[in-house]
Amino acid sequence: MAQEDVFKKIVSHCKEYGFVFPSSEIYDGLGAVYDYGQNGVELKNNIKQYWWKAMTMLHENIVGIDSAIFMHPTIWKASGHVDAFNDPLIDNRDSKKRYRADVLIEDQIAKYDEKIQKEVEKARKRFGDSFDEAKYMETSERVKEAKEKRDNLHARYAAAMQGPDLEALKQIILDEEIVDPISGTKNWTDVRQFNLMFSTEMGASADGSMKVYLRPETAQGIFVNYLNVQKTGRMKIPFGIAQIGKAFRNEIVARQFIFRMREFEQMEMQFFVQPGTELEWFPKWKETRMKWHLALGFGAENYRFHDHEKLAHYANAATDIEFKMPFGFKEVEGIHSRTNFDLSQHEKFSGKSIKYFDPQTNESYTPYVIETSIGVDRMFLSIMCHAYCEEKLENGETRVVLKLPAALAPVKLAVMPLVKKDGLPEKAREIINDLKFHFNCQYDEKDSIGKRYRRQDAIGTPYCVTVDHDTLNDGCVTLRFRDTMEQERVKISDLASIIEDKVSIASLLKKLQ
Amino acid sequence: MAQEDVFKKIVSHCKEYGFVFPSSEIYDGLGAVYDYGQNGVELKNNIKQYWWKAMTMLHENIVGIDSAIFMHPTIWKASGHVDAFNDPLIDNRDSKKRYRADVLIEDQIAKYDEKIQKEVEKARKRFGDSFDEAKYMETSERVKEAKEKRDNLHARYAAAMQGPDLEALKQIILDEEIVDPISGTKNWTDVRQFNLMFSTEMGASADGSMKVYLRPETAQGIFVNYLNVQKTGRMKIPFGIAQIGKAFRNEIVARQFIFRMREFEQMEMQFFVQPGTELEWFPKWKETRMKWHLALGFGAENYRFHDHEKLAHYANAATDIEFKMPFGFKEVEGIHSRTNFDLSQHEKFSGKSIKYFDPQTNESYTPYVIETSIGVDRMFLSIMCHAYCEEKLENGETRVVLKLPAALAPVKLAVMPLVKKDGLPEKAREIINDLKFHFNCQYDEKDSIGKRYRRQDAIGTPYCVTVDHDTLNDGCVTLRFRDTMEQERVKISDLASIIEDKVSIASLLKKLQ
Repeated sequence: MAQEDVFKKIVSHCKEYGFVFPSSEIYDGLGAVYDYGQNGVELKNNIKQYWWKAMTMLHENIVGIDSAIFMHPTIWKASGHVDAFNDPLIDNRDSKKRYRADVLIEDQIAKYDEKIQKEVEKARKRFGDSFDEAKYMETSERVKEAKEKRDNLHARYAAAMQGPDLEALKQIILDEEIVDPISGTKNWTDVRQFNLMFSTEMGASADGSMKVYLRPETAQGIFVNYLNVQKTGRMKIPFGIAQIGKAFRNEIVARQFIFRMREFEQMEMQFFVQPGTELEWFPKWKETRMKWHLALGFGAENYRFHDHEKLAHYANAATDIEFKMPFGFKEVEGIHSRTNFDLSQHEKFSGKSIKYFDPQTNESYTPYVIETSIGVDRMFLSIMCHAYCEEKLENGETRVVLKLPAALAPVKLAVMPLVKKDGLPEKAREIINDLKFHFNCQYDEKDSIGKRYRRQDAIGTPYCVTVDHDTLNDGCVTLRFRDTMEQERVKISDLASIIEDKVSIASLLKKLQ
Repeated sequence: MAQEDVFKKIVSHCKEYGFVFPSSEIYDGLGAVYDYGQNGVELKNNIKQYWWKAMTMLHENIVGIDSAIFMHPTIWKASGHVDAFNDPLIDNRDSKKRYRADVLIEDQIAKYDEKIQKEVEKARKRFGDSFDEAKYMETSERVKEAKEKRDNLHARYAAAMQGPDLEALKQIILDEEIVDPISGTKNWTDVRQFNLMFSTEMGASADGSMKVYLRPETAQGIFVNYLNVQKTGRMKIPFGIAQIGKAFRNEIVARQFIFRMREFEQMEMQFFVQPGTELEWFPKWKETRMKWHLALGFGAENYRFHDHEKLAHYANAATDIEFKMPFGFKEVEGIHSRTNFDLSQHEKFSGKSIKYFDPQTNESYTPYVIETSIGVDRMFLSIMCHAYCEEKLENGETRVVLKLPAALAPVKLAVMPLVKKDGLPEKAREIINDLKFHFNCQYDEKDSIGKRYRRQDAIGTPYCVTVDHDTLNDGCVTLRFRDTMEQERVKISDLASIIEDKVSIASLLKKLQ
């Protein structure tokens, strides 16, 4: 199946099984905003718990906070977001549509690449087995011409994005004769900067209200609180502060389902270290974070590091952890050595000293920061993509099964009476009543057992238990395993110990030792 | 100690021990917005877990969702928030300050009450033991006059608030000669309506952006998704949908620390029932919710129901669960029979049928809704208020101890080596390394054991363990209990079983059976 089709299937599976609904669907939706359904919210909460506990419970020197979405607006001046968190936009006067100028140009660069690829394919067909691609790429005039154009365009584009130079961006669009895909015309306006932060007005004093922003990242909430946490928590450097929370970006082109949304959730940890030691900590955090991903069991071949060659002005090292999605390897987490940029800026803009006094060196300094930043929604999507399987069964049917790590599954155990009578439903509920304090159980009595198994497979339930007539006599039930579909007769009194350890977040955490 | 002073102490305790920090403190704060510190976030998360699990794990017919803060703007037209979610505001032209007209008038009514109280106190002093308060209230001309004025004012005020009639509100302020507390003048503007929703602009299409709101309540996210959840989750009426999430209200007068904030968190559950059965469900939910509060162990005398006499237009029954705070009994939770108002409005405004088909009656209908709605931050504050104790010790010292329910405490166990040498720190960390996968542990080696106990008392840690030289030989530690301060020698290998059950959320849930 084409990867594109797989992705479509996953998106519709998310809706059909209560994982993700389009926001405000009965009002025809709201662009790039999604709601998590009854199974989605449990999976998402489990991901958050796994991250939170791995950060705070397993590290003696990391604690959490929960700062508000609203913050003092000067914070975003200090961080650079008011001045530099922009997208360059351009309008087509005929279609009245707005585009990101950089995306239009990148699409154009991709067209040259496609052209080259097509030439290669044509030549391959012409020459058959004797085709030497490397040599062809070197010698073909058409390919050489397209490569030259592409490289020139790329260079102009890269230069224009420094700054950025908005007029240069427009000139590229004109020179390349890029047309609006809707109107087909080249009737473009100038390129304007558009800030990606959402703003609103707070308060209503007679002298006016205050313009505040919805935070575009959670990190600043950690920076402005770091000294409060350090002092009241008596933390010593090196120490970290972890936070999970919503952030907002007014993306013009939001894409790929929940991969890029306007409202999204971040899990960020800022690790404060002595200046000069940050490049020792950076590889340690790369390793620690990769281990966290690998413990989910999706296979090392699906992950890779992507080190940044071009660094942001505040960073002296940066890498992404990329995960293989149906639409390619994509960033799910960033690990950045952010220097002391943010803390220094807050000192400057707040006028307050927020230096750390180091009792070991008897010095005060502005700590350096290693950041690990992961998008909850991206993590959710990457897990859904890898858990989703279609399996051919022996009877020729296909089953759809979500092979979620048991500790992340929304429902841990489904309990099913074989029939809806003879005291079996009561017995099934009795089992749930014993276990429900410890993990999520679901009662299901409708349809055949086979159909019920399929439903639980589709939401990733690792264990199903069937209560039959023998159960009433021997106190045993049939325990069925999701992935192998094997069944085993077990005592009801053993269920808790068989299941609980495998479905707990603790079971994942232990893999991180 | 005066209740006011107690409250001040709690607020400063919250800051000093990393529970709640003022937002953006280094930028001199942001009005009515707060951040949760390292201990606050754990307490808050535990409260949320307790609610979430009580709702979704203990009820077969309740599931959760997590809808976005952004929703289609027409939703707030349908719900009535665009037109009717207003505060009446008035400006004083001299001080340039803005006030809520209703609050000014309510303060004036309170002044008459104070006047009556003063007359009574004066008379009590004059007459001594022979004073008959009831008789005095009936006969004193001054009291009668003040009561009449108060009652007249109250009647005018209630009438003006219907509608509301903004001119009538202003006339009351003029007639009562209410003065601005700052300028001391009566130079008032007209009364204007001010909508409490925060708004922002989403998207940037060339034809303009879309005005969207930050949700002022989470409930609507449940209403617009209820049919998606019902269908994909195969729910049958009666069933409920639970949600925890942020909501935002641009309060003019935000008060009492985190009790009324501009950004706050709600835990709401909407229970969908057959029309006509809602008043059977209403008392059941009152009971269920009160039981949830009482399981925390703060004592029934601190809770009361406050049934609403005047009902909102959409409700046919409503009650508050009030909790005794240092500033009086205050609402922490509302339980409302909301009829089918919201669902009907969404049918009307969306033009879509969102009726439920009942397989038992073979009918389609718009369900009625019982709502339970609780503020996380208020709940947090009420718990802090009741957990905070100052105790006189035998040695004459005072200890501050947070008597939090163990299942809600931020840190469950502190492990302390008696001295920082002889292998005791290593042994202490070994203990933590075994337990840290299951609950939050803290290592503490600084200062005397007594001081360390005080620190753990102040953040509500239910258990402390001291590792001494004997530990290395006998494998036992001293386990110290927060509330009784009693100590017991226990085997390290028994620690998990002694502590784990008492500090788990499951231990609270079991009380709800």
